[in-house]
Amino acid sequence: MPTLPFPPDVDELLRRPNPAIVATVRPDGSPHSVATWYLWDGSRVLLNMDESRARLAFLRREPRVSLTVLDAESWYRQVNLDGRVAELVDDTELEDIDRLARLYTGRPFRDREHRRVSAWVEVERWHDWT
Amino acid sequence: MPTLPFPPDVDELLRRPNPAIVATVRPDGSPHSVATWYLWDGSRVLLNMDESRARLAFLRREPRVSLTVLDAESWYRQVNLDGRVAELVDDTELEDIDRLARLYTGRPFRDREHRRVSAWVEVERWHDWT
Repeated sequence: MPTLPFPPDVDELLRRPNPAIVATVRPDGSPHSVATWYLWDGSRVLLNMDESRARLAFLRREPRVSLTVLDAESWYRQVNLDGRVAELVDDTELEDIDRLARLYTGRPFRDREHRRVSAWVEVERWHDWT
Repeated sequence: MPTLPFPPDVDELLRRPNPAIVATVRPDGSPHSVATWYLWDGSRVLLNMDESRARLAFLRREPRVSLTVLDAESWYRQVNLDGRVAELVDDTELEDIDRLARLYTGRPFRDREHRRVSAWVEVERWHDWT
């Protein structure tokens, strides 16, 4: 099991706007997975979701997540991050989703109507496959 | 919640060799996610893994899985499949991994040494995001 901090090549990969899938666990114990934007800020992973999303309720009950990041340049390379949501914060001013949208699209997030919530994930384990 | 069978456009997407992530649940209740090859044969989803993989042990205990398939042509389109492993079969002749390898690489699987196991997943729920 590799240790933290990430080596430079993994850190560099994680800072790019790659496709990623977050897995959570439902109250009935079954897994749930969905594609997501993410942002690695050098210490934690930012996820952000509409407050109506089912996985927000799952995370309030079970904060452990597994994130698989595919290298956008070659999706045979992947990094798996296991961790837990250390903080759930209302994204009242939509600042966090704007950070994510700028990373992925180059612009602020389009929808200014719906309330959103940020999940800050602390990474506990990771694995790099190339 | 959309019903089965898949509409033609989802069926067509699923038959292509797309990037996919399978989420399982560890014995401690935490989620596990990893990229995987998959094959949709029209009735079930084939996954296949080296018999040493941790997730094989997870699946023997908890057969429910969540598979997120990204459209290789545009990874903003995704299909989420929730289901359960109906059957775990030793891939003694490596026929199943060869089917997967041919789909993804055009050739039989390279490694003929390691034992592999196939997991046949019955889809119970699905969601299509475009």
